[in-house]
This record gives sequence, C-alpha cells and structure tokens, in this order.
Amino acid sequence: MPTLLVINPNSNLAVTAGIDTAVSGLRSGLGADISVVGLDGTPFGIETQRDVEAVATPVAEHVAAHGDAYDAFVIACFSDPGLHAAREATDRPVLGIAQSGLLTALSLGESIGVISIGSGSLARHWRTYRSMGIAARVAADLPLGATVAELADTTRLGDRMLATGRRLVHDHGAAVLVLGCAGMAHYRADLERSLGVTVVDPTQAACAHALGAAALGYRTR
Amino acid sequence: MPTLLVINPNSNLAVTAGIDTAVSGLRSGLGADISVVGLDGTPFGIETQRDVEAVATPVAEHVAAHGDAYDAFVIACFSDPGLHAAREATDRPVLGIAQSGLLTALSLGESIGVISIGSGSLARHWRTYRSMGIAARVAADLPLGATVAELADTTRLGDRMLATGRRLVHDHGAAVLVLGCAGMAHYRADLERSLGVTVVDPTQAACAHALGAAALGYRTR
Amino acid sequence: MPTLLVINPNSNLAVTAGIDTAVSGLRSGLGADISVVGLDGTPFGIETQRDVEAVATPVAEHVAAHGDAYDAFVIACFSDPGLHAAREATDRPVLGIAQSGLLTALSLGESIGVISIGSGSLARHWRTYRSMGIAARVAADLPLGATVAELADTTRLGDRMLATGRRLVHDHGAAVLVLGCAGMAHYRADLERSLGVTVVDPTQAACAHALGAAALGYRTR
Amino acid sequence: MPTLLVINPNSNLAVTAGIDTAVSGLRSGLGADISVVGLDGTPFGIETQRDVEAVATPVAEHVAAHGDAYDAFVIACFSDPGLHAAREATDRPVLGIAQSGLLTALSLGESIGVISIGSGSLARHWRTYRSMGIAARVAADLPLGATVAELADTTRLGDRMLATGRRLVHDHGAAVLVLGCAGMAHYRADLERSLGVTVVDPTQAACAHALGAAALGYRTR
Amino acid sequence: MPTLLVINPNSNLAVTAGIDTAVSGLRSGLGADISVVGLDGTPFGIETQRDVEAVATPVAEHVAAHGDAYDAFVIACFSDPGLHAAREATDRPVLGIAQSGLLTALSLGESIGVISIGSGSLARHWRTYRSMGIAARVAADLPLGATVAELADTTRLGDRMLATGRRLVHDHGAAVLVLGCAGMAHYRADLERSLGVTVVDPTQAACAHALGAAALGYRTR
Amino acid sequence: MPTLLVINPNSNLAVTAGIDTAVSGLRSGLGADISVVGLDGTPFGIETQRDVEAVATPVAEHVAAHGDAYDAFVIACFSDPGLHAAREATDRPVLGIAQSGLLTALSLGESIGVISIGSGSLARHWRTYRSMGIAARVAADLPLGATVAELADTTRLGDRMLATGRRLVHDHGAAVLVLGCAGMAHYRADLERSLGVTVVDPTQAACAHALGAAALGYRTR
Repeated sequence: MPTLLVINPNSNLAVTAGIDTAVSGLRSGLGADISVVGLDGTPFGIETQRDVEAVATPVAEHVAAHGDAYDAFVIACFSDPGLHAAREATDRPVLGIAQSGLLTALSLGESIGVISIGSGSLARHWRTYRSMGIAARVAADLPLGATVAELADTTRLGDRMLATGRRLVHDHGAAVLVLGCAGMAHYRADLERSLGVTVVDPTQAACAHALGAAALGYRTR
Repeated sequence: MPTLLVINPNSNLAVTAGIDTAVSGLRSGLGADISVVGLDGTPFGIETQRDVEAVATPVAEHVAAHGDAYDAFVIACFSDPGLHAAREATDRPVLGIAQSGLLTALSLGESIGVISIGSGSLARHWRTYRSMGIAARVAADLPLGATVAELADTTRLGDRMLATGRRLVHDHGAAVLVLGCAGMAHYRADLERSLGVTVVDPTQAACAHALGAAALGYRTR
Repeated sequence: MPTLLVINPNSNLAVTAGIDTAVSGLRSGLGADISVVGLDGTPFGIETQRDVEAVATPVAEHVAAHGDAYDAFVIACFSDPGLHAAREATDRPVLGIAQSGLLTALSLGESIGVISIGSGSLARHWRTYRSMGIAARVAADLPLGATVAELADTTRLGDRMLATGRRLVHDHGAAVLVLGCAGMAHYRADLERSLGVTVVDPTQAACAHALGAAALGYRTR
Repeated sequence: MPTLLVINPNSNLAVTAGIDTAVSGLRSGLGADISVVGLDGTPFGIETQRDVEAVATPVAEHVAAHGDAYDAFVIACFSDPGLHAAREATDRPVLGIAQSGLLTALSLGESIGVISIGSGSLARHWRTYRSMGIAARVAADLPLGATVAELADTTRLGDRMLATGRRLVHDHGAAVLVLGCAGMAHYRADLERSLGVTVVDPTQAACAHALGAAALGYRTR
Repeated sequence: MPTLLVINPNSNLAVTAGIDTAVSGLRSGLGADISVVGLDGTPFGIETQRDVEAVATPVAEHVAAHGDAYDAFVIACFSDPGLHAAREATDRPVLGIAQSGLLTALSLGESIGVISIGSGSLARHWRTYRSMGIAARVAADLPLGATVAELADTTRLGDRMLATGRRLVHDHGAAVLVLGCAGMAHYRADLERSLGVTVVDPTQAACAHALGAAALGYRTR
Repeated sequence: MPTLLVINPNSNLAVTAGIDTAVSGLRSGLGADISVVGLDGTPFGIETQRDVEAVATPVAEHVAAHGDAYDAFVIACFSDPGLHAAREATDRPVLGIAQSGLLTALSLGESIGVISIGSGSLARHWRTYRSMGIAARVAADLPLGATVAELADTTRLGDRMLATGRRLVHDHGAAVLVLGCAGMAHYRADLERSLGVTVVDPTQAACAHALGAAALGYRTR
C-alpha cells in the first residue's frame, strides 16, 4: 500500500485535524497509509494571493525534503500553492487538491458547482479553471462569505453552505459540487443528503488520485 | 476494499486477458478486488461507430444486471460505449476509460498526446474531447494505422507505437501520453522507458478512479 | 426532385404523423418528395440515454436496408441517435435533426435558445453543443418539464411553451429558438407570432438541409 | 418554388457567370428560381478589407431596393460583406456564403479545411471563424497564392488547387473542404474525384439554405 | 511627443467635443498632442449595422489622406468601423476603441462588464468579443436602453448608467467596466466613485495605446 | 508625467541594464520618468517554477514598500511573478510584462508568436495564455533552447532568434511576435528589419501601459 503525505500549507491545526478526519475513510476503506502535516510559520488561512505566494516555496521545500519518504504528495489548499515547484523537486507524483477535486468532479457529472469561502478567491479560482482548460464545465462558483476560521463551526455555516449548494444545483444546474477549500469536508455528508448530488471534498479526491498515481507509477515531473 | 467489475465490451479474449494483466498492479499494490469480464455476442473489436452502438445496450444491461454485486463499474473501451445509459441503471459509480484516462492525464501534465489504433476513430475521439470540454489540452491524437487484432503482438507494433509516441512528444509537445484503446497496456512500460514521459493506460486509470469513487461514496447517477 | 426518408426512431404514431404534417410545407413549397416512417419495436419516446442507445442500431440498420431507395436520410430525434453509424452504412447523406436544427439557427441569428422537453435531457444536449464546437452560441437550454406524451396536446403545453420561449428571448437574449424535440413543430407558428423571433423546428430544418445535400451531391460518409 | 436573388458584390462578369453556372444544378435538381446579379461600380475582386468595406453599403442598398421582389437573398462573397446591414433592410432572409458554406460543412463532417485565394484574406477569415464560434472545427485555411483573376482559368490553377486540398485532407485531417471564394465552383468536381471528400461551394450551399429559409418562413431580421 | 488623430466617425459635434474633453487628461498628464475630428456627412450616431458600414470607407479614406500627418490614429466608435481597411491605408498604427478598451480592461482585472447604449448593438458586440478571442473574459454586456442623443445629458442617464454598472458588478461579477460607446466618458468619474471599480473609457484607453504604439514604433499593417 | 518603477525580479545586472536601455525610447519619446531596479537575493534568472515562486513575495513586498513613491509598477519577468499579490499591496496600478506584452500584441495583429528562452517554460506560458482566455490568438510559442545567461550576447543568439522568428511567421502564420523574456529587447530591431512584422518587447509594452494607467487613474486592486 503506497504511503501518502498530505501537506496542509497553513498553520491552522483545526484544518489539519479536519483533513486527517476527512481521509480516514480512505484509510479504512482502502487500507491507505496517509499522513497529514501542517506547516509551521505559514498563515492561519490562505485567503489572499499574498498568502498563496507566501506558502508556495515552503510547500515545495517540504516536498523536496521528504521526496524519498513518501510515495506521493498532496497539497491540501484549493489554490494548489507551490504545485509546479514541488513537482520539480521530486520524482514522485505531487497532486494539488483543486486540480484533483475538479477533475474528479468532471468524471462524475456534466457540470460543476464550486462552493468557495469568500468572494476574494473567485478571480483566482477562475484563472485556475481557465488555466486548466475546463472552464466550460464549471456552472458557477459561489462564495459563502465566510472566513477560514468560521468554517470550523458546523452549526454556524451549515445553513449558508446548504443554501449556496442549493443555488448551484437549482439555479445553475450543477450536477456535482466541489468544496472549494480544504477545510469543508465535514459539511459533505449533510450537503449530499439534502441536495441529492455528489459533493467532492477535494482533499479526499486528491488522496484517491495519489494512491492510484503511486500504485501505477505515474510521475508528475 | 471495494470490488470492481471491469467490462470489456468486445468478445476478444486476448483483450480481456490483457486487461486482467494490466490491472494486476492495482491488485497487488492496493489490494484491490477487480474482476474483468468480456461480453459474448459483441464484435471482436470496437473499430466503427456501428460497433460502438452495437455494444452500448449490452454494456448497460450487464451493469443493470450486476448493479448490486460490485461497488463500482468500469467500461473498458476508449469510446466509453453505453456509459451514460449504464449510469442510469445503477446507483453505483460507473466510469468510462476514455474519460478517466484523459482526466488522469490532465492531472499529471500540461498537454496530452493520444495514441489511437486507426484513423477511423479520430473523428469520434475529437467529438469526445470537445464534448468533455478539454480539447484545449489535447496536443494531438495520432493513429498507429493498426487493427485491434494486431495489437496483441508486441513485437509487431512496438516500433510503430514508439515512433508514434515520439512524434507526440517531440513534434506536438505532449507531456503525458494516453493509450487510446483498452488493449495497449502491455506497451506502456517500453514507451515510458524510451520516451521519459508518463504513459496512461486508460483502464488502469479508470480502475484507480473507481476504487476511489467506491471508497468515497461518489455516485454517477 | 430528390427523395428523402425521415426516420422517427420511436414508435409513437402521433409523433410520426406530426412530423409528416410539419414537412408538408416543404412538399408544397419546394415540391419535395419526403416520406416519414416510424420504427416498430422502439420506445414510445426517447427520453433517457437508454432510449437513445436502444434505437441507434435500428436506425442505422434501417438506413442500411434502404440506402439505395432514397437520396438522403433524416434521423428525426433531437439526440441524433445512430447518426454516425448510419453514415457508415450508406453513400447517401444522412442528417440528424439536432445538428441541422442548431446549424440552421446559427445561420439566422446571433445566439440560440433551445426549448427541451425535460431536464433529464439537458446534460445530453450540452454534450452535443460542446461536441459540435458551437456551445458559445447557445444562450440557454430550458426544459418544459413535460413528457413526450404531453407534447401532443397543444392546448395543454401551449402556455408553458410560450413562457419558456419568452424567458429564452428576454432573460437569456436568444435571437432564434430551436425546438429541442421532433414532436414540437405544431407550436412553432404560435411561438413566432407571440415572440417575434424565428423558431426552428429541427426536422423541417434537417429536411431542407437534406434536399440541398442530395441536390448538390454531398456525402456524409 | 421560392425566388432567390444571388448578389455577386464585385463587377467581374466571369465570376457572375460562374456563379450562374454553379447554381444550375439547384435549378434543375430542385426546380429553384435563382437570379444572379453583379454590382456595377464595385471592385473587380474583393481581395482587401478596403474592397470588403467598399461593397457593404451597395449590397445592403441593393437588397433594400429589391426587398419585396425575391423570397430570399444570398451575398456571394466569402467575406459576407454587408450581411448584417442587408438583414436590417428587409424582412426576407439574407444569407452570406461564408456562413452558409461553413455551417453546411459542419453538418457533413468532423473538421473543415478551407481553400483561400491568397494569404491576405486569412486573418479576415479567422476573425469570421472565431466570430461564428466555430473555430474549433476549422482544421486549417490554406491560401492558393492566386488572384481573383487567375481563378477563371481552370487549367492554370487546377494543380495548385488539388495540392492545397490534398494538404488540407492529409496533413490537417480535414474531412470536408470549403471553397473560400465565390469563384471556385468549377474546381469542385475535380477536387471531389481526386480527394474523395465532399467539397462545399459556398454559393451553392447558401442557395440551398436560402431555399429552405424561404420555404419555411425563416427571418434573419 | 507623438501626435495622434482621433476620428469620431459620426457627425455629432457634442460627441466630438466630449471626446476632446475626455482625452484632455492625457494631454495634461502625458503632454500628448491629440487632435480630435468628426466626419462630415456621416450619421449623427452609429446605432445600426447600416451606420457602421456607412462610415467604414470614409474612416479609411480619412486615415489614408492624413497618413503622414500624424504618428498614430484612433477610430472613436465602439464598433471599430473601418479599422482593418484603415490599417491597409497607412504604415502608422491605427487602433480601434473597442479593441483597445477591452484589451486595456483585460490588463486591469479578471472579468469585464460592458455598458452599451441599446440592445441593438449587443449581437454586434458579441461578434467582436468572440472575433477577438476574449469572450471568456466578458462577464456581461448590458444595454442602457438609450440613444446616442440622450447620452449627452448627464443628469438624465446618470441613474440608469449607475444601475446598469451596479448590476454588472454585483450580479455578474465584473471587476472592470468598459463604456461601450465613445460618448460616455463624462460618466466615468461618477461610476468609479459609486461602484469602486475601474471604469475604462475606450477612447482614453485607445489614445494611451496609440501613444505607446507611436513611441515604440509598432505597426498595424 | 507619471513616475514608473520597473522591477526586474532577478539579480542579473545585465538584464536590469538591458531593461533600462530598452525603455529609454519611452523616456525620450514620451518624456517618461522610468526607474529600473533589480532585486538582491533573487535568482540570476527565472527559469524554473521554483524561481518564479522564490521571487513572488519579494516582488510584492518591494511594491508594498514603495507603494506611495511611484505612480505605477511593472514586474519585468515574463512569468509575471507576484503580480496578483503586488496588486493587493497598493492602490497604484501594477502590470506584468507577460500580460501587457500579449495584450499589446493582440491590439496589433491577428495571431501572436512567442519566442521563449527554453522549452522548460512552455507549459508555464500556455497556462498563462489559457488563464488569460486568449490562447486562441497564440499561433505558437517556440523555444530558443538558450539560457538567460546566453541572451546577453547578441552575436551568439542572433541567428537562432531570427530562425525562430521566421518559423513563427512563415510556418505558424504569426502576424506579431512577442519576446518571451525581459532580456531580449536588444534583438527587437534586427527581428523587425529581417521579418517585416512588429516585435513586441513586453517590458516596453508594459511601461507604455503603465504610463497610460497612471495618467488615466486606473487601479488594479
């Protein structure tokens, strides 16, 4: 069974713990060996482009430093910070959760709806959708108007999350939802139950991708 | 560990056996439980649109008949015959190897090169690339000028396969190759060694996707 | 004057009769020789992907069996079932009503609005729009929320049809409407009168295309 | 039977006569009533953007002056000069040969190859392909390196025409060719015989479109 | 300092004067030598395609006649009439305000919102956006429902202008606005103050482009 | 006259000096006040994604530290490192040379050819072209196969530069060339003279953009 390292590029321990919980289903279901780590000295949340740039090099350096210790790496932030630099640093596959979450959603249904934390990340997200060449499949990307810190409290954002998901499905015709942040996995089950569509947590999706990539000997360099 | 059923929608036993061999690395590497089956009464190879249409309903019916017996299904023909009909027939995830192979390649590198059997399938492939909304990432799709039957003999097509892959990488700038047929997996290792790029066998990629989909509770209905 | 065969790939006699009426203007206006036929043993309506797959081979076989008896063929279902297989079966031109209806609309105005029967066909339609490479010109595709059976009763769906057309024109800026089903032609005149835009019945459009294709010696093989 | 007026917006009588000959098959095959007229005082050929602009208003005014005398109008220059202005001038359908030729080709095969007179028109053509939203289906547009005057002599350009068509089919994978000028129809038969693909003369295609548009009551206003 | 000629291709003296005022900031800020001229005998406003065609040749001829007298030329109508013909007529750079306004906006923010005078120009605008290959970056183009004549009265259209801009920003997510007419510059300051986004007057943008083009020796021929 | 700061995000003094020379024409021609600065502690050249990430934060911090001292900022590296972070750091306009160079080229001709240093930057460039939504206008991006260090010696790379430009123009139909690096400006004159097309040095283009942006009060925040 391949070993994975999931890097949470912020210093928010609750997010790191949430990711650890989110991937437990892959551990039990596939017997996967998945480690999750945060990065000291990084921002509490990745909300601005400045935050994205600040963690890119630390992420790549962390991968470089552990390039032989794991079979594959996952960068657990929806801006995929440092993805291409990390790929230069190791022969092992390195996956970003935005890319993996979106591509996984494309394999499940016609059009994608993305739930983002705040409106400040929408321009960055659309640059990614277009850069990936898949923008025609993204029905809409709607912001919750929340902060990374607020995400931790399920009871607080649950209603807003559901209302946003409902608009994506009913008004924009999304067939699959993607959670546009590494810290939203705990909302997945409720959303699926209420809305009747598959909801992709991008970190889970990237870990599944990474397991396959490691088992099949793919490289991203 | 989820159970997968891989359906080879032709009646060519060598292809069915080749698929079985191709996914053995996922069995040993991930401990996956993968069954491979051919379909009686189908064409020997899927080379024309008539062949594609002929197997679509049998594929969907096979999925419908075994919808409760496996955790996920893979349709192992690069035309993804019957994919959307099969998805209507079960709550479990159903994946097509063209979609999964292409989306996996998109997660590994900038632009994709596809090696196809014959020129007769190129128009059909491009309809798929555009239908998926990813055509901007496909550098080229080059035909071998071979038949399904010829694929079985490695020594015979090896040189042509390598020359085609080399043109995709050097002339068209492909960063990742996708084998455009379910019966080409045995060429993967040689191509990777000679060309220095990752080569995606679409059936392997779809099985890895399906394992994740089953473990994470995705639905494609 | 070329002879055309229009194949209604369902077994709904009212739809077959409606198509026959819809093309009568081409018979009188252009003196065209147009035969319309239904296919026994097919579904009553083509509403699911399973229905689409079920009729693809019968359509292609019907064309193959009559390949010398008509100068051109039209497949009268907005999913264009069996189109590419039928083209392999004859030297004469074979046209699908979705392709012809959409391309005709593109020659008449800037952006297209499509009125579909139910929401279940939207994903299939968008795969077609993208596959054709014309999705940028489709303003919206809105469902009536009706069944094929309900379409026969003009008084019943007339209001809903008009409301849907109005939304396409006023909210989505459609300059031309396309009826997204072979069985909606009898609503065309009312829609045009009420909305002031051209409404393309795709079967009429495909027959006009087919007359030209036959007269000009085009081939689709 | 509807009456059509085909407007050749240059003053080259040989081109006007060639168009008249080119549409004779539609007259005999469909019994169509097609008149062809040149415009006095216009350039001998439409080769520059200055030429295109020079004829736009005369074309629109000619349509306006005869708006009641014909059932539909065709503008027979591959730059579609004055198309949108002419549409403002009459309730009857007005079609341009570039739009109709290209859309007709899209109904016949996967990807289009265009044979243009000179390299000076390529930028203008690509603006049209993108403006129409169909550029993804245009495999290539290759210039003959000829002048409008040279086109009249079949023996002179026949070899170059054939060589250009062959490159479009063999090197660029075009499944259908479009003649990128109103004065190339007399090369069509030879090209089809030699290359084995359908070759669309855009004026013929537009006349067939216009007959259908008139018979079916379409409007382009 | 380069000398520019800005050509207002209509005969509305208020628009010519408004343009002269609009570029005064470039004169004082950059010391630019900018002349503004209207064209006699042209329509009072460019509102229809007929108007666009009517001024194309006069614009090109005006550029041809003054090709040596200025270092660069700007065509000050959002339909860029005669742009490509004018480029054929001089070695000096000729810029259209639609192209320059839109490209400038693309350099400032993620997605563009355009405020147009009337709904009659939307189809023409979208042909331009697609022709330029930038339609993916245009969030929306909303009409004021005004005439060129009404634009002159700030107090009259100010509220409607603001409401339209607000919809572009809040409902369509536009990050930058473009004024879709040469006669709207006097609304720019109010819109920016009220909406908090940059508003591009296309004539100002084109003059800035033209200054750079002249200083750097670019050619558009 | 606005004041500009051009930031060369590498520590190669020859490149900084070359940029200073390249913008001297804007100083003399427009009287512009342009300062050019390198960044200590950065790589000698920006050739890998690691290099791009390494300089993003220093660039943004340099802009933040001098946000009040200049009217506009230009980031002089064709990867536009730190562009979006720098925009968060100041109210003044910040432009990247890749964006400005490409958008300027789009205002000058139909299709763009880019000359890049090495093949390692092609994937990064295409991500940018797609991210900007302008990939349809990029004819080709061809690498010189050189290093940043080699660029300094005109005699050494002149022939290769010319051969690459010739291929872009003749084989790929590029109407305008863009130099894909901040250190190539000294090749511009020779290329234009030999090839007869406009060659855009992206730093010059960005400075012209920035002068306009500052004079017109645009913001990029």
